[in-house]
Amino acid sequence: LAAGPTEGLRRFLREVHYADLAEVLPELNLAQRIKIIRMCEPSKAAAILYQLDRSEVKELLEGLGEWRAAAILREMSTDDAADLLGEMPQEERERFLSLMGAAEAEDVQELLEYGPDTAGGIMTTEFVSVREDVTAQEAIEILRATAPDAETVYYVYVVDKENRLVGVVSLRELILSAPATRVADIMRTEVIRVDVNTDQEEVARIVAKYDFLAVPVVDARNRLLGIVTVDDILDVVEEEATEDILRLANIEYEGRYFESGVVKRATKRLPWLVALMFGELLAGHVIANFSATLSAITALAFFMTVMAGGPGNLATQTLAVVVRGLATGEVNSRAVLGVILGEVRVAVIVGLVSGLVLAGIAYAWQGQTVLGFIVGLSLALSMIVAAIIGSLVPLVINRFGFDPALASGPFITTLMDVCSMLIYFGLATFILHRYLI
Amino acid sequence: LAAGPTEGLRRFLREVHYADLAEVLPELNLAQRIKIIRMCEPSKAAAILYQLDRSEVKELLEGLGEWRAAAILREMSTDDAADLLGEMPQEERERFLSLMGAAEAEDVQELLEYGPDTAGGIMTTEFVSVREDVTAQEAIEILRATAPDAETVYYVYVVDKENRLVGVVSLRELILSAPATRVADIMRTEVIRVDVNTDQEEVARIVAKYDFLAVPVVDARNRLLGIVTVDDILDVVEEEATEDILRLANIEYEGRYFESGVVKRATKRLPWLVALMFGELLAGHVIANFSATLSAITALAFFMTVMAGGPGNLATQTLAVVVRGLATGEVNSRAVLGVILGEVRVAVIVGLVSGLVLAGIAYAWQGQTVLGFIVGLSLALSMIVAAIIGSLVPLVINRFGFDPALASGPFITTLMDVCSMLIYFGLATFILHRYLI
Repeated sequence: LAAGPTEGLRRFLREVHYADLAEVLPELNLAQRIKIIRMCEPSKAAAILYQLDRSEVKELLEGLGEWRAAAILREMSTDDAADLLGEMPQEERERFLSLMGAAEAEDVQELLEYGPDTAGGIMTTEFVSVREDVTAQEAIEILRATAPDAETVYYVYVVDKENRLVGVVSLRELILSAPATRVADIMRTEVIRVDVNTDQEEVARIVAKYDFLAVPVVDARNRLLGIVTVDDILDVVEEEATEDILRLANIEYEGRYFESGVVKRATKRLPWLVALMFGELLAGHVIANFSATLSAITALAFFMTVMAGGPGNLATQTLAVVVRGLATGEVNSRAVLGVILGEVRVAVIVGLVSGLVLAGIAYAWQGQTVLGFIVGLSLALSMIVAAIIGSLVPLVINRFGFDPALASGPFITTLMDVCSMLIYFGLATFILHRYLI
Repeated sequence: LAAGPTEGLRRFLREVHYADLAEVLPELNLAQRIKIIRMCEPSKAAAILYQLDRSEVKELLEGLGEWRAAAILREMSTDDAADLLGEMPQEERERFLSLMGAAEAEDVQELLEYGPDTAGGIMTTEFVSVREDVTAQEAIEILRATAPDAETVYYVYVVDKENRLVGVVSLRELILSAPATRVADIMRTEVIRVDVNTDQEEVARIVAKYDFLAVPVVDARNRLLGIVTVDDILDVVEEEATEDILRLANIEYEGRYFESGVVKRATKRLPWLVALMFGELLAGHVIANFSATLSAITALAFFMTVMAGGPGNLATQTLAVVVRGLATGEVNSRAVLGVILGEVRVAVIVGLVSGLVLAGIAYAWQGQTVLGFIVGLSLALSMIVAAIIGSLVPLVINRFGFDPALASGPFITTLMDVCSMLIYFGLATFILHRYLI
């Protein structure tokens, strides 16, 4: 790279896609990276920087020098710039903002004030809006003049004189209309919009439901503030799915996992693992309380892993189904009772069948009818409890407005271990006292 | 609804968004649904039908009568029609195909031949393509003429006389160019494209990476066959995330879960739960083999839930992190050893800390130093094994070309239960024989 013919490199950089460049850049050293970025046009450099890890961007911007850094930041769409700067310390953020043009810095500053997970946090302020009385031809002219600055030109928003959103017309419709048609006559007035404080997950649902390329964002007084484009929505959907999966495994989501150090990853997980260990100790405490029963029927110990594992697995399945159903909107909070009842009915079938199988195995293995009865009935009962816990807990968490994925798999299985041990040893003790002693 | 003034209803139907209508429709009875669909324009009816559950579509199409059904199917974009018809039995599919226009039926028939999870399966054949020598103005005219039939008009694809893809130009670029410019002069020639057999997950990654609104699909000889649009990609991303989450919980993904009956849901889960039960019985078998040790130190039983649960939780976490990392591309198959080593180092820290805590608790609770030593060391060792299993298994599955999420949480925790019990009772027996007897 260092020795290569510069003209060839320049041509290569012009032709290669920014996303591909961003992918190979981390494999170069800082000096090489700075050289590459310097040789790209500012707009391409901006696109590359946005795709890099946040930690790398800072040193690159500093290495490029103030003038070049400012040029690149100006080329970035305002939502991307706000994203990047939002993750920097206050001081540096202000330094970089001062490098940008005053108008852009102001827009970025405004975006920084919205919560990062709201419509305001992911919207861009670069869109095309026109007044109602312009013609299709004039609207296209306005597009021509402002398009290089607008992130998407596929919708033109129509506003009144107080900048309130009154309609929308797609570029497609503008092209298809006679040039002299007034925008007011072809615009759709039933514009689906989102409030600036709407959660990004809700925005994603709306964009997906209506197959939009972009959705307008308004404030409480219906003034048009920005738009959220479908490429940002794709990122949101990916991010929310990752968050759900990690939360279900009891890992707090915090962006790129593999970039953080080993110690940080360990300390993030330790508190939960230790807390869950105390949960499991509670199950152990249950066993200790029933140690007389355990001594009387030692074979009970052989089935402890089945008794803890089976219902734990069923609870995990139920949890995953309900959490995902809530995320995609398939399960709604009105139908809570129906969902729980459905899961319990599944559990009754599953519990009875696996209980019978286990009872058979226990009898064949140990030759004790009573043992077979105890393990079979305990497993069936625990499975039903598992279905209730696995569906009720995320639904309740959701009802209280939290992310249902907070009811993680490890949490649910630990809770189930305690319940299963209580049922198992409780039933065994009851039968022992009532029929055997 | 039945008695309402028809004119008002008609106006309402014209104004309301199809996605909203599709949402309320299932709450009406069949006769009312048919009435509503009849009153909508065919294009709107087509959009509504596509959003409904597949099971409902069939009876609606039949209830509408052949003529109306054909009109609606013709209005549907070819990929949507192929989607709908693909899920019907052969016989009915052919009946509906015969109702459509010959040209469209042929397109749909072709789409039906591609695997449903490939680029060919999700692409539409309705796109706009022009030859290299047309001007920007002419290209816009072609758009005007063909646009009502094209699912997206935001990219115009440029092909040579053998229909091979040679370039792409966005509607935005066409609008911004002087009308007489030749398309060949403004088109980008480095077109990122996908092969018709590319997996849909890979297509989604490409669209997300490059922030595309659509990506062209070509055959082995670079002939343009169709395009995949971003709205279909959003569906793919949602679907793949759901699939991952359910597979991680050991539930085979099969579309809308809550729609299938209780018995079907139970039979889907039973084989796995019973198989896993046998896995847990293997752990029970380990315990049975060590029953002499268990009788010697009864207190070992109290810590069995911790010993199975803790490492199980860590394995679940590791699994979730690795599976998600593979899905988002953060973990790539080259870095396998690095990922495993990283997870093991996390496990060493987590294992040592929680092992020490547990050793302390065991000593305080039971007053036996040896017991504390056994439980502490077993927990630490099991956690390290958990990290290896939790990362190695999905990576190996991925290496062999299968979905890493097939290494589900229940499977991994069951495997861990066997390992943990082996380590726990193995260590206890070793110490018992070596130092205590």
